[in-house]
Amino acid sequence: MAVATHPAVAEKPPSLDALLTLARPDMAAVDALIKRHMDSPVPVIPALADHLIAGSAKRLRPLLTVAAARLAGARDEACLKLAAAVEFIHTATLLHDDVVDSSQLRRGRVAAHLIWGAPSSVLVGDFLFARAFELMVGAGSMPALEILARASRVIAEGEVLQLTRAHDLDLSQEVYLDIIKAKTAELFAAAAESGAVSAGASPDRCRALRKYGQDLGIAFQLVDDALDYSGDSADLGKNPGDDFREGKATLPLLLVMARSGPAEREFWIRTVDRREQTAADFARTCELMRATGALQSTLDLAADYATSAKAALADFGANPWRPALEDLADFAVARTA
Amino acid sequence: MAVATHPAVAEKPPSLDALLTLARPDMAAVDALIKRHMDSPVPVIPALADHLIAGSAKRLRPLLTVAAARLAGARDEACLKLAAAVEFIHTATLLHDDVVDSSQLRRGRVAAHLIWGAPSSVLVGDFLFARAFELMVGAGSMPALEILARASRVIAEGEVLQLTRAHDLDLSQEVYLDIIKAKTAELFAAAAESGAVSAGASPDRCRALRKYGQDLGIAFQLVDDALDYSGDSADLGKNPGDDFREGKATLPLLLVMARSGPAEREFWIRTVDRREQTAADFARTCELMRATGALQSTLDLAADYATSAKAALADFGANPWRPALEDLADFAVARTA
Repeated sequence: MAVATHPAVAEKPPSLDALLTLARPDMAAVDALIKRHMDSPVPVIPALADHLIAGSAKRLRPLLTVAAARLAGARDEACLKLAAAVEFIHTATLLHDDVVDSSQLRRGRVAAHLIWGAPSSVLVGDFLFARAFELMVGAGSMPALEILARASRVIAEGEVLQLTRAHDLDLSQEVYLDIIKAKTAELFAAAAESGAVSAGASPDRCRALRKYGQDLGIAFQLVDDALDYSGDSADLGKNPGDDFREGKATLPLLLVMARSGPAEREFWIRTVDRREQTAADFARTCELMRATGALQSTLDLAADYATSAKAALADFGANPWRPALEDLADFAVARTA
Repeated sequence: MAVATHPAVAEKPPSLDALLTLARPDMAAVDALIKRHMDSPVPVIPALADHLIAGSAKRLRPLLTVAAARLAGARDEACLKLAAAVEFIHTATLLHDDVVDSSQLRRGRVAAHLIWGAPSSVLVGDFLFARAFELMVGAGSMPALEILARASRVIAEGEVLQLTRAHDLDLSQEVYLDIIKAKTAELFAAAAESGAVSAGASPDRCRALRKYGQDLGIAFQLVDDALDYSGDSADLGKNPGDDFREGKATLPLLLVMARSGPAEREFWIRTVDRREQTAADFARTCELMRATGALQSTLDLAADYATSAKAALADFGANPWRPALEDLADFAVARTA
């Protein structure tokens, strides 16, 4: 008897193999730059930085810079320094976020501030952020520097917005999208755009790659927010349920609160607003999310953004980097970690 | 009957009047840039930034950028954006330092993290740091950007070094000087050097202004460390005795520990190493500092660096900015707040 399969499973599962193979020599050079530039005569700096950076298996954001630059025709190595700078900006924001959120786990490891203390995490974040700008100066492109300086500022604004609004039960989906555009998608957008700009691409192509990066980043964060209610901690490298325990108003939670009706209102006020939670509350929330379709709607929206990201590459013609970046958009939605 | 006066009092007291008069139009423009660039659609950002920036009466570091640029012949306004960037870098490090040190008071006001919380202070610091780089991009000088990116990294290294070594009773004076060169003097050096570079000054003159800024910064920090044992909280805008309570190994403390002999060894182990302090311990320490000359030696060293700073200006010839900067070096040593 034939087993019924979900349509998505019947298709070829998205894979990053083509992209990773194309990017392998460049990413080996980026890794060497990262390693060299995290060094410092002050021993705690490379130790703390390495703890976090070595835990990053995918290096998606620098990969995006390299792929955008090569797709746009880059022949030199300026994009490699920009890619390393992008990873440093990302790592600096992770270090500060974990202090701000008092997170326990990051990339499958104990959060750095629990080992070295919050002061060291704050200051090593500052070190990496400054190093990022030194690398950008080394890349020599003032327009790329402008894009990444602006992105760094927008990310900080998004983090502050999230901090001041995240526990708001009446947060609109529009403000939620503003937050994830700023705190996550902006760096994806800037990573791709700065790669294109450093390759001397036309303004149209720079805009197209920025759009690809931004939509990919939104899809990526939507899936991240869904996985916090459906993922497995061994896969994720962090604890599912963290967002719920912090009362963070992400899209799955906003949707389930809107759809579960007045009967549950008291439940949300207690668990999200007052953050008085029992061990069973998270499981009950996950169950309500499945029942109301809140998780599926979040993933559907992510799929829409991935489709839009792929469409942004339409004008690039035959180039092996293009289908590889299309795979990345599919992968961002289908991933389970 | 004639009253005996201290030789230093007999001289004309150093004044910043000439410098402030020369710089007035430029500093008004810098203030306007600062005001405009601390703005953000996220309300807590300008509120928190303004709390700290409005408390800064002197704006010494941006003043240094403007003065160095004008002394080096700058005719355009690029130095004003760099000066605003320098103030933002400084403010960002103050915000992060106060979180790291759990300071209570800054520039005569309650520390920002006690009003808005440590997370907001960390993130608004990141915002200001990113804004600094946006301003530098606007100034358009890649060499100036390189100098200030490097300085930002060196400052972070100095802060981490201080964090990991500051409570070490056996800290050498050499490591103490390394710490203050990095955490304080580097920004003074970079402020002056970037101003000179943006003015298109010769490499010799850029080096001379860097040297002036570095020696001025060392003198400034030495006096700061002395004032923590001799100043008045109303003048200082922060609490004297903070360094002692934190067990921070600054030069006055290193000198008094070295000079007070084995009889006091137990006192230092209890108060500095274990930080078990009674209300009378700080007064006793101040008394020992006066008796051993530890405070005077610190101020004498500051005066030596101020002399060296002035000597670095020797080749600049007749230019009204030169005596004004010489006054600044004298002021840094003679100040009581």
